Amino acid sequence: MSIKVGIYGYGNLGRGVECALRQNPDMELVAVFTRRDPSTVKTVFDDTVVASVDEAERYVDCIDVMVLCGGSATDLPEQTPAMARLFNVVDSFDTHAAIPQHFAAVDAAATATGHTALISVGWDPGLFSLNRVLAEAILPAGAGYTFWGKGVSQGHSDAVRRIEGVLDARQYTIPVPAALEAVRRGDQPSLTTRQKHTRECFVVAKEGADLARIEREIVTMPHYFDEYDTTVHFISAEEMNREHSGIPHGGRVIRTGKTGREQESTQVMEFGLTLDSNPEFTASVLVAYARAAVRLHREGAVGCKTVLDVPPAYLSALEGDTLRRTML
Amino acid sequence: MSIKVGIYGYGNLGRGVECALRQNPDMELVAVFTRRDPSTVKTVFDDTVVASVDEAERYVDCIDVMVLCGGSATDLPEQTPAMARLFNVVDSFDTHAAIPQHFAAVDAAATATGHTALISVGWDPGLFSLNRVLAEAILPAGAGYTFWGKGVSQGHSDAVRRIEGVLDARQYTIPVPAALEAVRRGDQPSLTTRQKHTRECFVVAKEGADLARIEREIVTMPHYFDEYDTTVHFISAEEMNREHSGIPHGGRVIRTGKTGREQESTQVMEFGLTLDSNPEFTASVLVAYARAAVRLHREGAVGCKTVLDVPPAYLSALEGDTLRRTML
Repeated sequence: MSIKVGIYGYGNLGRGVECALRQNPDMELVAVFTRRDPSTVKTVFDDTVVASVDEAERYVDCIDVMVLCGGSATDLPEQTPAMARLFNVVDSFDTHAAIPQHFAAVDAAATATGHTALISVGWDPGLFSLNRVLAEAILPAGAGYTFWGKGVSQGHSDAVRRIEGVLDARQYTIPVPAALEAVRRGDQPSLTTRQKHTRECFVVAKEGADLARIEREIVTMPHYFDEYDTTVHFISAEEMNREHSGIPHGGRVIRTGKTGREQESTQVMEFGLTLDSNPEFTASVLVAYARAAVRLHREGAVGCKTVLDVPPAYLSALEGDTLRRTML
Repeated sequence: MSIKVGIYGYGNLGRGVECALRQNPDMELVAVFTRRDPSTVKTVFDDTVVASVDEAERYVDCIDVMVLCGGSATDLPEQTPAMARLFNVVDSFDTHAAIPQHFAAVDAAATATGHTALISVGWDPGLFSLNRVLAEAILPAGAGYTFWGKGVSQGHSDAVRRIEGVLDARQYTIPVPAALEAVRRGDQPSLTTRQKHTRECFVVAKEGADLARIEREIVTMPHYFDEYDTTVHFISAEEMNREHSGIPHGGRVIRTGKTGREQESTQVMEFGLTLDSNPEFTASVLVAYARAAVRLHREGAVGCKTVLDVPPAYLSALEGDTLRRTML
């Protein structure tokens, strides 16, 4: 019996989920739900059904899990609790500071209606969180680090685009090699924001714009750039399209710990991702956890959970004995 | 209420568990159980209680989980089922091919007596298995690889020591850099045994021994060396003690997958370990999963499980809301 999936919200992430579902023969896409006029939406695959978000409620009996693909700023805080009243849900809510509040809202909705919800599923939060918890539990006497990149930060790219005179911009976050090296050696360094990452911006400016002013506005921008060493490159629109149209990202979670009688042994655990497409990978994580949400629900689990609550075997379509025989 | 732990079997691994427990304030060591005369056993810490394995049964009411530290060849197949009749247990059984059989024996014992057992807890099987399952579930259209080393293989070192004329030996397993590179690039290469790892042996020979014969016996040894490119170095006993007394190890699980409409994006997931001390790290993993075994038992879970069945949050001493606030 295949798992029936809905996609709620249809941007890059929703398209990624549409593609990822095709790689999982035990799952099938029932419909994409959009706020736009469904007749205007072009899907990745021609046979994908598109419906209006207003119709979602009619699908309660034929969708096992709804994958929420909206943004964390305004969409998910409203959509995930609302959908958790109707369906089992999975989202990729990624505003770290607001997770407890989002968890509480989704938990109340899911618990009241007997659904299973998994929030903050992706790579950070998500797989990186899993590795932080795993590594800290195993190496309690140690220090943990998260590095992001090299990759495109959408938030920082948007911030640069809002500067007067900027037509287009792409911002890359890059780990500082010396910091990575010191961490991997087991030095357990204290690193400032500036020592961990650098930022590199590629900017298409309006003709005649004051480039020096744009650069100054970027590198001094509070919160986004002022605590970093930032490099700004002005390029043509053609170069932007040719060289910077992808959405690569990645990063690594590293923990080094000491063990032994005198804490004389250094142990290093590292989990890293190198992604050609950030939204497609996040979509692939969402799909694996959508399977787990349905498994949890069938076992009677109710309420809001995170990746920290999911046994790894639940992500796989394979049975326990097959996993033990072939993967353990 | 702290978790009360017993250690069954007291070699390098048992000593590692003794040390690791000191790093976890929510756990306490009740006693080490040995087959030797307890009065002859020197523990890492002076206040550690040593008892005979024959006394273990008397401790059923004061031990929450027994950590089994015997070997996989002959100890654990007998000890884990026997102890699972008396206690919740965790072991690091690592004979991959025999896992289904060991699982069945431990499951029968634990189920019959209402205990929780976690087997094959360590890094491979263990954390590497977890990452293989995670990565295959997320990137089903892909290829997975496990590399071991650089590190000491005890089994291969022992095999060399059994050769006539060899006084001592240490064997390092080393991943082939070109293979690692091809995998990380996303080439999804088919790799033979020889293409993945090389083996390097350091040998102390008896005075007057036929070194050419020893080298030939090593590099042609079936199963252990004949499928590998092996280098042999003859060194002095002093150099062996000075340069090769540690038990370092490590390795990495890498999966690369394709996503997107035309499978046009390459995504790379990598989990790696660099360990100064293999037994101390395995011990640290056992201790974190011992905590999880007790949590599972308190929730009513009965029978045999593996790392694939354990929610990551159960490894941590922190509460769920703290984990969500600080680690997610």
